[in-house]
Amino acid sequence: MNSRRDFLQKMTASAVAFSFFPRSGSATMNELSDQPYQGPVLRVAIMGLGSYGSRVAEAMQTCKKAKLAGVISGTPSKIKDWQSKYNIPEKNCYNYENFDRIKDNPDIDAVYVITPNGLHREQVIRVAKAGKHAICEKPMALNAKEGQEMIDACKKAKVKLLVGYRMHFEPKTLEIIRMRKDGELGKVLFFQGLSGFRIGDPNQWRLDRKLAGGGAMMDIGIYSINGARYMIGEEPIWVTAEETKTDHVKFKEGVDETIQFQLGFPSGAVASCLSTYTMNNLDRFFLNGEKGFAELQPSTGYGPIKGRTNKGELTHPHITHQTVQMDEMSGIILEGKQPIVPVDGEEGLKDLKIIDAIFLAAKTGKKVDLKL
Amino acid sequence: MNSRRDFLQKMTASAVAFSFFPRSGSATMNELSDQPYQGPVLRVAIMGLGSYGSRVAEAMQTCKKAKLAGVISGTPSKIKDWQSKYNIPEKNCYNYENFDRIKDNPDIDAVYVITPNGLHREQVIRVAKAGKHAICEKPMALNAKEGQEMIDACKKAKVKLLVGYRMHFEPKTLEIIRMRKDGELGKVLFFQGLSGFRIGDPNQWRLDRKLAGGGAMMDIGIYSINGARYMIGEEPIWVTAEETKTDHVKFKEGVDETIQFQLGFPSGAVASCLSTYTMNNLDRFFLNGEKGFAELQPSTGYGPIKGRTNKGELTHPHITHQTVQMDEMSGIILEGKQPIVPVDGEEGLKDLKIIDAIFLAAKTGKKVDLKL
Repeated sequence: MNSRRDFLQKMTASAVAFSFFPRSGSATMNELSDQPYQGPVLRVAIMGLGSYGSRVAEAMQTCKKAKLAGVISGTPSKIKDWQSKYNIPEKNCYNYENFDRIKDNPDIDAVYVITPNGLHREQVIRVAKAGKHAICEKPMALNAKEGQEMIDACKKAKVKLLVGYRMHFEPKTLEIIRMRKDGELGKVLFFQGLSGFRIGDPNQWRLDRKLAGGGAMMDIGIYSINGARYMIGEEPIWVTAEETKTDHVKFKEGVDETIQFQLGFPSGAVASCLSTYTMNNLDRFFLNGEKGFAELQPSTGYGPIKGRTNKGELTHPHITHQTVQMDEMSGIILEGKQPIVPVDGEEGLKDLKIIDAIFLAAKTGKKVDLKL
Repeated sequence: MNSRRDFLQKMTASAVAFSFFPRSGSATMNELSDQPYQGPVLRVAIMGLGSYGSRVAEAMQTCKKAKLAGVISGTPSKIKDWQSKYNIPEKNCYNYENFDRIKDNPDIDAVYVITPNGLHREQVIRVAKAGKHAICEKPMALNAKEGQEMIDACKKAKVKLLVGYRMHFEPKTLEIIRMRKDGELGKVLFFQGLSGFRIGDPNQWRLDRKLAGGGAMMDIGIYSINGARYMIGEEPIWVTAEETKTDHVKFKEGVDETIQFQLGFPSGAVASCLSTYTMNNLDRFFLNGEKGFAELQPSTGYGPIKGRTNKGELTHPHITHQTVQMDEMSGIILEGKQPIVPVDGEEGLKDLKIIDAIFLAAKTGKKVDLKL
């Protein structure tokens, strides 16, 4: 097992991208050779050293085109730990008061904001004003209004804004998207997304409306929203939603426990999704076409993803999602590469518009029309 | 293969019921012995000799407690065929004009109405008035008002009214119900039902509003409605629904092509279902509990049903559903047996009330409260 894992970890993202997607044509001879990578490297500072930030940092250790270069945190002891663990120089360490000074640091290209949702807007705008590219964890913000402000700020500052959609680079997911695009599934009419787990500690920020902007929907339901869009390959034109709450103590006003939502698409395709913090291990995408079907289960966990279609099981090897994501984001930011599924601010904004509509539909009980 | 199939076909329904459900205690020593069955036999006339009627007739050939004794049809040539095939005496043959005379026939106990939905109400009421027990194919009628009238007529005539819910006797389905009842799945919070196939001939009665009472919902969607109830084990208290139509020629006004619907239950459990005449091979039930899950796929086809739970695959052998159904219905009618999941008129009426609510919810876009 270990040698296989080592092998997978050591495979470079571009080599993998080439072998999985021969049509993309993004790999160069240099990238396919055994010679050390000599192209541009994205130097990233991570803002927010929590559990997901730690996961990204670990994954970046095997990146080829991206490098952990700095940290931003409000906890000096965490900064110390990361400095020694990842050999980060003092001059690349910031706190939330002084990080605007990053503008004068020529050794940082981008800041990856991995903080509670309610802080994203202000922090990304500050990153943009400091002239650094921003990568923001999803959901991009608390609502579409905030998301638009972030996009505007990054445009004005002429920096790129990307959102941490790691599944957009996942090989089995991309293979299904390719099959759908190439007509191998026939006309696609139905998508189902089940996204849920049983949330633990009732005092975490994810259950605090001000910091999270909601409950399960902002955290896990967004995977089904985003998945419906990239699996079907269209933008929804309406949404309906129904909310259910069984625990009013854990899930306070404005913090959703369970929401079922439905999306309608221009072609007549429909999506039926579940977002919940009360049921364990719900992580399944199902796409049904006139000629075939595709299933991902688990569909969005940290991996390995399992996929099968009417033609059989997908066997693409697992590579740590965040490693691939950061290498690919380096290519997008530094080399102007175009990902197969977008990961920019506009992409994040679409999900926020849908979330706004889901909350409205759940509250009013009415179908809400969308124009994305 | 053949010997196994023969073996399964020859197994008596009661022996099977005994081996699968040792707790039911309904089997007697006599039923378990190798001696020929000597208990009461339900003598059934089938009304409507179409493809499903033919399937039931074939299945009844291996019944122990039920016997095909008569036919009612508007097509003399079909009656002739069935007479010779199943050795049915002339005196047990009727047409739609004269079948009220069945009242004077001591050799018929019950009539199984297998005609287009729009005819059920009148025909079942005539069967009741003739003093015969009525078995009615599902949906029981076009709407709840009609269903109630049928129940009232059968009560007044002191005959039994059963609805053709063959899945209520299906071993894998019943095993999952047992697991849920015994708490092996923990608290159940989510059910998904996908019910659909691509309908062929646009001129069939199932696409005629007057005869069918709708489209996919009356024919195939009802499986997800009924399944949600028996899998969760509660009655829904609200419903929402969204209709999508891509083919307005094939699916005329009042004939539904695709409806997504959601049900809410008193415990906080929710169901998310799809009913469609446009997507092929959708036949999946999924039940998610706090401690485990259960999946049936196919879940309602003529068989074999496939089931798995968190504990592994279900291995109960397949027996033709209609054979088991008719043997069990004989026990219900002649011996007063109580099925694990009801199959009476009240059960059919509940589904009709839900269908009425789904159509209303789809039309108005509003959540509809239910009291079943």
